[in-house]
Amino acid sequence: MTEFRRDPITGKWVIIAAGRAKRPDYFKKEQKQGDVVASCSFCPGNEDKTPKEIRVDPMEAGQNPYWQIRVVPNLYPAAEIIKEGLERPQKLGLYSTMKGYGAHEVIIESPRHNIPFEDQPVEHLMLLLMRFKERVIDLYKDDQIKQVVLYKNHGREAGASISHPHSQLITLPFVPDDLKEELNGARAYYAKEKSCIWCDILMQEMRTNLQIFDETGTSIVRADPLKERVVFENRGFVALCPFASKFPYEMHIIPKRHSHYFGNFGEKENFQEIKDLAEIFKTVIKKLNKALFGIYPESVPYNFFLHTSPNLKFRWNEDKFKTLEFDFHWHFEIHPRTSIEAGFERGSGSYINVVAPEIAAKELRDAEIEEKPSSV
Amino acid sequence: MTEFRRDPITGKWVIIAAGRAKRPDYFKKEQKQGDVVASCSFCPGNEDKTPKEIRVDPMEAGQNPYWQIRVVPNLYPAAEIIKEGLERPQKLGLYSTMKGYGAHEVIIESPRHNIPFEDQPVEHLMLLLMRFKERVIDLYKDDQIKQVVLYKNHGREAGASISHPHSQLITLPFVPDDLKEELNGARAYYAKEKSCIWCDILMQEMRTNLQIFDETGTSIVRADPLKERVVFENRGFVALCPFASKFPYEMHIIPKRHSHYFGNFGEKENFQEIKDLAEIFKTVIKKLNKALFGIYPESVPYNFFLHTSPNLKFRWNEDKFKTLEFDFHWHFEIHPRTSIEAGFERGSGSYINVVAPEIAAKELRDAEIEEKPSSV
Repeated sequence: MTEFRRDPITGKWVIIAAGRAKRPDYFKKEQKQGDVVASCSFCPGNEDKTPKEIRVDPMEAGQNPYWQIRVVPNLYPAAEIIKEGLERPQKLGLYSTMKGYGAHEVIIESPRHNIPFEDQPVEHLMLLLMRFKERVIDLYKDDQIKQVVLYKNHGREAGASISHPHSQLITLPFVPDDLKEELNGARAYYAKEKSCIWCDILMQEMRTNLQIFDETGTSIVRADPLKERVVFENRGFVALCPFASKFPYEMHIIPKRHSHYFGNFGEKENFQEIKDLAEIFKTVIKKLNKALFGIYPESVPYNFFLHTSPNLKFRWNEDKFKTLEFDFHWHFEIHPRTSIEAGFERGSGSYINVVAPEIAAKELRDAEIEEKPSSV
Repeated sequence: MTEFRRDPITGKWVIIAAGRAKRPDYFKKEQKQGDVVASCSFCPGNEDKTPKEIRVDPMEAGQNPYWQIRVVPNLYPAAEIIKEGLERPQKLGLYSTMKGYGAHEVIIESPRHNIPFEDQPVEHLMLLLMRFKERVIDLYKDDQIKQVVLYKNHGREAGASISHPHSQLITLPFVPDDLKEELNGARAYYAKEKSCIWCDILMQEMRTNLQIFDETGTSIVRADPLKERVVFENRGFVALCPFASKFPYEMHIIPKRHSHYFGNFGEKENFQEIKDLAEIFKTVIKKLNKALFGIYPESVPYNFFLHTSPNLKFRWNEDKFKTLEFDFHWHFEIHPRTSIEAGFERGSGSYINVVAPEIAAKELRDAEIEEKPSSV
């Protein structure tokens, strides 16, 4: 049974057409990643194959390798800090153009070539999340940077060209489209409801009974005892498959504590919050691998990315994001790459999702993993 | 040298970062398609493996197979015509939902399993384009259909699950995002300029010298003797790599004759227009295969899709598209699938294009193909 669903934040429609998953060969297999280390420019011993480090976390003295996490500029950057600085767009007849300005950094997550993100110890993930945060804060000191995009590609199908575990950061002098849609949607919601839409989504998703109204105003109680789209929850965070998921097994990790800016994450040495995020990240990706083990015996290819507020210190900021502190709510999104975007998606910007989020969330909840995370 | 470019229609920014193409293994190889025919549900003899035909073009009497082109419902539809008809969205607390309503059709382009779209004779492509048009007109008779999305997936990397040449049609009871952005952008442009933005783009792209102005009003003449983004042109159409191409070798085929609606294509038996479109389609895809032959010895995976106006007879149409006839301009877009969308694109909705459209257009112009098309 096909269903159209509208994302309450962006207003985008998504088609939930669960029957299509039965198509033969719909899921494609993960290619086995090589164990070759000598040729990997992110492996210890090859530090000279990357540009000079921006930040490095050392091991204890005398140990080899000497580092735990390295942040380096991307050798093939999509954007670079240029001497001339950021310039205003130029017109070319109908067109507008501006010089590229920004940073493109690689965060090498571990010296170990074959340890996926989710197999790192919680303590190491905590350190990594702190580096994510510090890079965002540091980059936002440049008032020529409007937005940072932090993301990870895991597996060839997810666009990873190097299998050694790493994440990336790209900065932009504008707010990119998907985030702008979220910002605009959230601002409109706040203007009307005087509350944050993510906070309200969490309220609705975590309730066990939801009172709703049909068009005539008649009350309908929809019993929802299972928190049907919730995958996992701990003290600080909820992981859920959003109501209008665009992709099968799509998950969002949303902090329970309202904050527009990832730079505020774990502030005042809130190690509990950092640990909670490390644990929920680890847990849900392990659950994903477990749930799809029959299809991906190695690990599921995925992207994750951060949505956080734009840089409020940007030099050409207009006043339009002034309520941002109240209406935006930072979060991570995880997109498993189990299918290929085809002509329909390319031609319409709409998405056909072949696994309903309630089904996906149930499979993920039910996927038992070995290490017991500290749930609520 | 990285460059940001804004699409004049949608307002979306694209990053042109040509240096990134040098990354090792950036292009992935096309998987060789099987020659097995007996197991193909689109091949002659297997007509009973698809639902009953909506439309069939017969061969001459007594020939085998008995058909040239078959239009059938998709066996795994993303949307279906349902008895109850289209219903208004329902609210579920914060969320909106509506029942799926629409059609999902497959156009089997030929009885021959291994003949790609671009290798069809021009006369056969003319027939196929007429079927495209007739299906759009027929589907728009249903006032519960707002938008038709016509598209093709060629090759596994482009999302094709069956290699037998076919195109597809999905209808929606709403205007999908990408098209809505185009419609809104075009309407705003028309309101300001009292002209169609595609017509003006063609004017700018086809000029050999363009007078432009910098921010202080000083005139700069930009010599553009090569029509640098134009790939091919004939009497009726221009194929170009758009200024803000999202993807390497992206091409748009734009009719020179202004029309908002693909249903008006080839009207009053304008066979010249039909032939022109068939020829330019064939030419540019053959050029694409030729230009990338070193990387894809078989053929380049690609999607193409139609952007045409929404159904003006839709039952819940508001007045907002009243200038559509003047401001929208139907066209086809071709997206070669030479790269994988990764976390940056997923996290931002912005795209990094590793081949500047001027370079792509030059390579495509220079790619010599055997059959000489009738250019202007």
